[in-house]
Amino acid sequence: MLNINIRDSAARVTEEALLQAIRDAAPVLKRAQAGEEKYADSQGWLRLEQWAGEDWLRQIESIAERVKKTCDAFVLIGVGGSNNAARSVIEALKEDGGVEIIYAGNTLSPHALNKMLRSLEGRDYAIDCIAKNFETLEPGSSFRILREAMAKKYSPEEAAKRTICTGTYGSSLEKLCQQEGYTFVPFPTDVGGRYSAFSFVGLLPMAVAGIDIRSLVRGGRDMEALLHATDAASNPALRYAVLRNLYHRQGYALEMLASFEPQLRWFNKWWVQLFAESEGKDGKGIFPVAAEYSEELHAVGQYLQDGAPLMFETFLDIQEPTDHLVIHSDGKQDHFDYLNGKDFWEINRAAFDATVTAHSAKMPCVILEIGALDAYHFGQLFYFFQFACYLSGELLGINPFDQPGVEAYKGWMFKALGK
Amino acid sequence: MLNINIRDSAARVTEEALLQAIRDAAPVLKRAQAGEEKYADSQGWLRLEQWAGEDWLRQIESIAERVKKTCDAFVLIGVGGSNNAARSVIEALKEDGGVEIIYAGNTLSPHALNKMLRSLEGRDYAIDCIAKNFETLEPGSSFRILREAMAKKYSPEEAAKRTICTGTYGSSLEKLCQQEGYTFVPFPTDVGGRYSAFSFVGLLPMAVAGIDIRSLVRGGRDMEALLHATDAASNPALRYAVLRNLYHRQGYALEMLASFEPQLRWFNKWWVQLFAESEGKDGKGIFPVAAEYSEELHAVGQYLQDGAPLMFETFLDIQEPTDHLVIHSDGKQDHFDYLNGKDFWEINRAAFDATVTAHSAKMPCVILEIGALDAYHFGQLFYFFQFACYLSGELLGINPFDQPGVEAYKGWMFKALGK
Repeated sequence: MLNINIRDSAARVTEEALLQAIRDAAPVLKRAQAGEEKYADSQGWLRLEQWAGEDWLRQIESIAERVKKTCDAFVLIGVGGSNNAARSVIEALKEDGGVEIIYAGNTLSPHALNKMLRSLEGRDYAIDCIAKNFETLEPGSSFRILREAMAKKYSPEEAAKRTICTGTYGSSLEKLCQQEGYTFVPFPTDVGGRYSAFSFVGLLPMAVAGIDIRSLVRGGRDMEALLHATDAASNPALRYAVLRNLYHRQGYALEMLASFEPQLRWFNKWWVQLFAESEGKDGKGIFPVAAEYSEELHAVGQYLQDGAPLMFETFLDIQEPTDHLVIHSDGKQDHFDYLNGKDFWEINRAAFDATVTAHSAKMPCVILEIGALDAYHFGQLFYFFQFACYLSGELLGINPFDQPGVEAYKGWMFKALGK
Repeated sequence: MLNINIRDSAARVTEEALLQAIRDAAPVLKRAQAGEEKYADSQGWLRLEQWAGEDWLRQIESIAERVKKTCDAFVLIGVGGSNNAARSVIEALKEDGGVEIIYAGNTLSPHALNKMLRSLEGRDYAIDCIAKNFETLEPGSSFRILREAMAKKYSPEEAAKRTICTGTYGSSLEKLCQQEGYTFVPFPTDVGGRYSAFSFVGLLPMAVAGIDIRSLVRGGRDMEALLHATDAASNPALRYAVLRNLYHRQGYALEMLASFEPQLRWFNKWWVQLFAESEGKDGKGIFPVAAEYSEELHAVGQYLQDGAPLMFETFLDIQEPTDHLVIHSDGKQDHFDYLNGKDFWEINRAAFDATVTAHSAKMPCVILEIGALDAYHFGQLFYFFQFACYLSGELLGINPFDQPGVEAYKGWMFKALGK
């Protein structure tokens, strides 16, 4: 379902060392499969049934249908974990037409916000303010200017009908919904933003965008079943988590996630946030970076090949063609006749293989084989990386579910703004 | 014109040590100001007069006017240095309306290419194939499918009129233009792609997009004059180049470029390519990464604050408001009343200041003050970083103008494709 291959011309980690490390890490996997008491307030994502079960899916679909009937745009107000999962799927898979998804709550730039407001002019829209902690400045301030824009366009009753808030039970956001008649849907209390793909947070905007969320959830559940039923020796999430920690201990400070499909641009951001915020603490952590190949072979490619040996590389290897396009000759002398009759899918794969061959002479390359680029496999990927990140954080010896460091700049900012 | 401030609570580099290092580096600056014989084939960018003088600007404007009159879309076929400078300015500054710029030649994904072709349906367009080395696969293959699309839509004469190629004199691309009646414009022979902003490569697509390229070139020339007339002690490019090498020698492996304007998203990519490809060689180099704040404070922010001390940070600090938007209260109880009457420009600046304060407790922060986000200052920035990158590469002891490592994967790929 998800194969992991290693290409490394110098065999920096031998198969034997890897197997030993996996055996050593078996208790970590066992604990994760059982669910840990100490993380009880952060593991609501571990079983999809809890926040993406049938009843929830029906509610999500029902709200999404209402939005689709009355809107041609939908504003997702959210930052970080309240934005990245939905955006990564929508930007990759949304078909032309249907409700357009507009992003807000993720910037304080007046230029970007005015541009966002202009894009709503003349359109019917609904908004979804997604905030686990309703003190965060970006979504809170965007919610305000969008309420102001709606007040100019709609009656108070109509504006209220078009306002959804995704917040925790008992929060001030829920209270606001009760006071104002907004639709309130739950942000899981026991799930952090970066682990919230399989809940109202990720699924509602996806459903509005026309994504097949049942397929996505099925992919997640299949991966959940696999990772919970498989022992250490054959568990792909543990294998990946152990591998990256072994490379890290050998001195590789960075992990580069690479793929050859620009569709994955926003998934890269989801992945970077997941690992940076989960592992970057206590002076530790593999620093996650991502690249869009083949374009960025013409940017960071030179550094990876010949620069300082800072990183190992993890490739997402999509197995099924994402599309087809054949190159023909038009008889003009351009010296590209060796491409005649070739499909870009084949050419892109040749670029993939060539890159892995070239890079694996310089650094360890990990290849994750993914079946296809569709909702089902996005579901697999989300669950796989979330579970692997949890295991990896445990192996690193940090708490993969908190983010104390984000508070430092917030404190200074609130002070500057006189809060 | 461009101030550099340092914020570093631990004073990892003292002012005295910095001044001494600047004095030591004075000969490097002197050589760069004079122009070096050994780099004669790569320094055509050093004096803007050579490729962005009055005669060239008139030619660029004349071609751009012709395109504007006959097209509502313009396809920039180019990858890496043949794409990044133009795209960074266009994506930041292009106003709504006018000719839309479409990017091709920067991917091998059939999904992305078909999407690009669909976006041209029903539109009148021209194409510009920008390739210093007309053997590179991405632009060469995109040029083919775009010629095929044009052949379906236009007569051979009309298609030829709508085809521009930016290539080197004497290249096979120039020959093709002569054979087919395409418009040929020069890619400077003595300028590498990543240093080519001030030439047909960067300026023609910008002009088509309605960017004030004269203002941009004026910014570049003013920076050129400053950096060539200023001695070591007060030269901002040398100061920046010396600083980053001092931090690097202290063990900081990464430089994070950060700004609080999403408008700079594509400029980040230009900057990353410039430094990664210039410095990542001989097992050396500061690895360049970039972040869009405040959004990515909710992603990599945790790592920067609490993770491993891998990086120093360079902030682009825009002085003049990019726009205004004031927050009002609508009387609803959202606990954001401390924002009442505040302008987002002011709030975004508070976030900037808070971030620098928080991060400078953890790592050295370098702040580059830029007057405003307009064409003139983009010109300043391009020249400043190009010159600083040259100096920095010299201090690091590598050749900042070649890219031997990009060839490794190309070799494997050509082999796989039977070239």
